[in-house]
Amino acid sequence: MHFGDKLLERIEKVGSSLVVGIDPDPKRLFGESSVFRRANPTLSRESLLDAFCEAAISAAAEAACAVKPQAAFFEAMGTWGYASLSRCIKLARQKGIPVILDAKRGDIGNTATAYAAAYLDPAGEFFADALTVNPYLGPDTLEPFAAAADKAGSGLFVLVKTSNPGSGAFQDTILADGRPLYLKVADAVSELGRSRLGARRYSNIGAVVGATYPEELAAIREAMPETIFLVPGYGAQGGTAEDVRGAFKADGFGAIVSSSRGIIFAYEKLAADGERLDLQQIAASMLLAARRSRDDIQKVRPSI
Amino acid sequence: MHFGDKLLERIEKVGSSLVVGIDPDPKRLFGESSVFRRANPTLSRESLLDAFCEAAISAAAEAACAVKPQAAFFEAMGTWGYASLSRCIKLARQKGIPVILDAKRGDIGNTATAYAAAYLDPAGEFFADALTVNPYLGPDTLEPFAAAADKAGSGLFVLVKTSNPGSGAFQDTILADGRPLYLKVADAVSELGRSRLGARRYSNIGAVVGATYPEELAAIREAMPETIFLVPGYGAQGGTAEDVRGAFKADGFGAIVSSSRGIIFAYEKLAADGERLDLQQIAASMLLAARRSRDDIQKVRPSI
Repeated sequence: MHFGDKLLERIEKVGSSLVVGIDPDPKRLFGESSVFRRANPTLSRESLLDAFCEAAISAAAEAACAVKPQAAFFEAMGTWGYASLSRCIKLARQKGIPVILDAKRGDIGNTATAYAAAYLDPAGEFFADALTVNPYLGPDTLEPFAAAADKAGSGLFVLVKTSNPGSGAFQDTILADGRPLYLKVADAVSELGRSRLGARRYSNIGAVVGATYPEELAAIREAMPETIFLVPGYGAQGGTAEDVRGAFKADGFGAIVSSSRGIIFAYEKLAADGERLDLQQIAASMLLAARRSRDDIQKVRPSI
Repeated sequence: MHFGDKLLERIEKVGSSLVVGIDPDPKRLFGESSVFRRANPTLSRESLLDAFCEAAISAAAEAACAVKPQAAFFEAMGTWGYASLSRCIKLARQKGIPVILDAKRGDIGNTATAYAAAYLDPAGEFFADALTVNPYLGPDTLEPFAAAADKAGSGLFVLVKTSNPGSGAFQDTILADGRPLYLKVADAVSELGRSRLGARRYSNIGAVVGATYPEELAAIREAMPETIFLVPGYGAQGGTAEDVRGAFKADGFGAIVSSSRGIIFAYEKLAADGERLDLQQIAASMLLAARRSRDDIQKVRPSI
């Protein structure tokens, strides 16, 4: 099934355009004052990490259209963290939740093909429904990723305008033709995706466009009519539902909104008085936060 | 010790500005017609991969100033490939060879910090002397990598102008001020590195500049006087020693030149007649190819 169709079907089924970002920050999971570790004093690091992912996935099963594991945090834990990422991806997919692996890979020629084999090959340990990729090396370097995604029924989300404070330094640079660079990148990504529409007229080549720059978001929405946006920056990074409004198309689709820390670490506030939580309370807190974000986003999304 | 000083010392010691790229393409290692697999019929995949890296490292020990394992190929093999990457990095470092991990990572805020923890923390499994990073997200996203590199005595190589055929699509875009984008990126990387010079006046923040665009290479050399260039594209990608000439400074330093396939798969030509090679012959072939590349590069490098 085409990735765009699969994602839209899931959005309809669960009534949510929220993506739960899974960012298992080692300090917050294993640090001295970790509420999560205190909740599970007998578990090994591996089991703690797996349990954390499982709780986030449970919340997403009810309240999100996808999960977005952030590869960096798993890689920061070394080989055992990387192995846990594989289990995290598999568990979410078993539960029918599309997995967007946020790895921001990008390289040339046969190296791009190797990254695609790692993350977009259904036979691989890390097979994901979609992968985030970086366009700086040029549209030719996105082709091996796109070809692998096509073959697997997966998708890509290409960085266009990121949510960080300094994203403008290069992305907003004004070109000789008067456009900012991000619109040139948007056009190239749009072009890559145009021949790849699903039955519901969205491409499997998506774009990452941050919630923290609503004006730019609106301009990019205009430039990429057939592109699904993965919108980071909502929640802990400061973007509000209002900031996200412009990402949606009139049909209520066209965007999925990611929140990580605001959901997966919501339980930390519950234990501010030093109270010890159990794993069930932690999972319940994640679910509650996910429901709230889902509903918050729904308010600004045209009804579907 | 400062990464720039460490690298220059190694270049002097071995008399080589060559970097041996370790790109263990699974097809060429494990494919049906693999010369390497035929040479080692009794080894497991893990041992085959380790043996391949070991042969490349042996060649680099004599004839190269650094090795550059390409993360993508290890990731393509899943968790066991990733575990082998850790052993590859450690073995090279044990032999005193600086390791440049070519992973082209890049992300924002605490995610960039997590990548830096994965690859630039001396306590980590994957600690490397340098890491390649992607600048598209903005100079603020390079700061956590630079801070980790400073602390560890490691370095970065930031993509400025890549060697692929389509690298110009975004990198060569002419800006409103008349410059191509790669020169704006060059200036930002230069700025990041200026406060980070070693005793020998080179920064630990390097740049990736492809051999396949000699004119752009010369312009970038001019713009970044204190920056060490990691130059890919020489050898199998079509760049010649002559193309690399402009990367060096008058002192004979300022650039290291990477070759992967031309060295590590040189043995495949020896076995064109179907002859079976042994591991020693394969390692000898890699060493011979590395020596030739070293000497070829030396011809265009000002004497040191």
